[in-house]
Amino acid sequence: MSNQNQRKEVENKLSQKHSGEIGNGKNKMVGKQSIEFGTPVRIRCSASVVGKKEGQGPLGHLFDKICTDDTFGTKSWEAAESALQKATVELCLEKSNTNIEEIRYLFAGDLLGQCIASSFGLAEFNRPLFGLYGACSTSALSITLGSIAIAAGVADKVMCVTSSHFASAEKEFRFPLEYGNQRPLSASWTVIGSGAFLLADTPNEKDRAIITAVTPGRIVDYGLKDSMNMGMCMAPAAADVIYHHLQDFQRQPDYYDRIITGDLGHVGKQGVIDLLKQKGIDITAQHMDCGIEIFDQVTQDTHAGGSGCGCAASVLSAYILKQLEDKTWKRVLFVPTGALLSKVSFNEGNSVPGIAHAVVVEGI
Amino acid sequence: MSNQNQRKEVENKLSQKHSGEIGNGKNKMVGKQSIEFGTPVRIRCSASVVGKKEGQGPLGHLFDKICTDDTFGTKSWEAAESALQKATVELCLEKSNTNIEEIRYLFAGDLLGQCIASSFGLAEFNRPLFGLYGACSTSALSITLGSIAIAAGVADKVMCVTSSHFASAEKEFRFPLEYGNQRPLSASWTVIGSGAFLLADTPNEKDRAIITAVTPGRIVDYGLKDSMNMGMCMAPAAADVIYHHLQDFQRQPDYYDRIITGDLGHVGKQGVIDLLKQKGIDITAQHMDCGIEIFDQVTQDTHAGGSGCGCAASVLSAYILKQLEDKTWKRVLFVPTGALLSKVSFNEGNSVPGIAHAVVVEGI
Repeated sequence: MSNQNQRKEVENKLSQKHSGEIGNGKNKMVGKQSIEFGTPVRIRCSASVVGKKEGQGPLGHLFDKICTDDTFGTKSWEAAESALQKATVELCLEKSNTNIEEIRYLFAGDLLGQCIASSFGLAEFNRPLFGLYGACSTSALSITLGSIAIAAGVADKVMCVTSSHFASAEKEFRFPLEYGNQRPLSASWTVIGSGAFLLADTPNEKDRAIITAVTPGRIVDYGLKDSMNMGMCMAPAAADVIYHHLQDFQRQPDYYDRIITGDLGHVGKQGVIDLLKQKGIDITAQHMDCGIEIFDQVTQDTHAGGSGCGCAASVLSAYILKQLEDKTWKRVLFVPTGALLSKVSFNEGNSVPGIAHAVVVEGI
Repeated sequence: MSNQNQRKEVENKLSQKHSGEIGNGKNKMVGKQSIEFGTPVRIRCSASVVGKKEGQGPLGHLFDKICTDDTFGTKSWEAAESALQKATVELCLEKSNTNIEEIRYLFAGDLLGQCIASSFGLAEFNRPLFGLYGACSTSALSITLGSIAIAAGVADKVMCVTSSHFASAEKEFRFPLEYGNQRPLSASWTVIGSGAFLLADTPNEKDRAIITAVTPGRIVDYGLKDSMNMGMCMAPAAADVIYHHLQDFQRQPDYYDRIITGDLGHVGKQGVIDLLKQKGIDITAQHMDCGIEIFDQVTQDTHAGGSGCGCAASVLSAYILKQLEDKTWKRVLFVPTGALLSKVSFNEGNSVPGIAHAVVVEGI
């Protein structure tokens, strides 16, 4: 090939890459609040890193990495969470043989005030960052916005990462661990964990799954004020977004192999099932909750179950995507839920509203 | 027209609306980290609501609404900020004669831990919410992500809103007002203000301006630890994103009538100019800072200038868009800056990294 032809070929490739169109499909607004991607967004790779207790749980053998030192070698719980998030992104890059420079944008968030776990965990990567806050729903929030960026043709590869840490969350929302306070059985146990997802616009044989649609959710406030029963605070938001997702797409629950909430736990699980039954929808057969799956309630003394951004994110990466890859499931509705409270709002006597976002993840 | 024809016309309109394509242009990834929208995103309408002190400043006559009661009739500073944000969205809906049901998604954030000003301020609107955190850069973050959603064809109208409140921010980051602590001259004064922006996909004669491109920014940490000099903490991030924006698009500073940072103040202003000079770029003639414009440094005793999410947002709505409408300016680069710290990160001795996002806003 002549030099001129070679140059033309490179130029063509570049202009294709920058054409801002992925595939031939057009994105669609569906119903009242849903989105269908014209061309499915690819989950190229993912990684999960968890703490010691999560490693001892029923899904322990599935996580990519279990750290037995919950401080991650740092001097504060916040720094530990930053180290955890950083390690998860690094592992995802390594697994996918991707250079950080190839990642167009980072979409990240965590539970801490001003999202400091993400800020300090991701600064060194030196990539443009979209900071997000949706409490424990942030894994879906990051994947939703990352997918929209890919579907808009404004990014070819993005990394969506979220984390939570039991000790930094207890300090942020409840009591420092040193107080040794007791917890009611309705309380959940914040997961030490992080999940990172590399989304891409073009197919690759390594792709783990695809994202075909999303339903961003609304804040739903039933006026509950018990931060030790966040499952019930969030159940109405989960029910709301699942209901509207099914309405928007005119689907029945059995369209999905599983409808998977993030961290409603044993108490909130009954809540979301009951609320949907009142609207004539029965998800009993399909419902699964990451917070229930990650710990053994009897032997691990985690009361209502696991919670936190890192709960849904690490379970999606380690367990849910594996079931889709193994063809055990064909498609799932992934619905992480968040409780919108802060130390201040709680102490001022406010309610704990919930929010949830739904993502359709399908096997390839 | 026959009934059948009428129905066909309606169906055609609906399918057009849901085609997921806006205009004929394709979105483009430009350079290392920028985005050019194939079809410009429209700023259909905007609203600004500020507090008493802001109303007494040089831009006082331009804001839509000045509240003389900084509590906004509520019992806590956090509730006051929620009320402020809610009032701004309502005003934007009213000005644009838009029903909240027409707003596909809300993109919102504030400075408080777990973004509670937005959560409690926006819950009643009952619309799907993307919660964001980028400290004082959040106004650009919300407009950037809202624009991407419009450009992706996954939303036809979105509302981007951010707020800050002097008293809730002092309590969150420094000291409760009751302490009556002194402030160094390098400290900024958090603006009581909120700006809401209704972005749309199709042209309308009422449109205030258009968004043609964005450059999402990176975290930049020069290791500064002084939360009373946030201007200098943020200046490196502003310089970084302005530099990469100009590089990505191969533009010179004079391509813009103004390059407008959010809240660097008098100290940070010199910082961003000096840092860019070191890279051979002189923005002295174009640079403007919302924090410097909003207060009179001499008579209002606001030291380095105004700051907060609400500073850049309210100044964009009241002043910058007006200059573009009046054809005084043709186009500006809007670059709100954020300081990524929390009470906890500061008390643990961490540095205060900065982040900034750049948005190209053009007159019509």
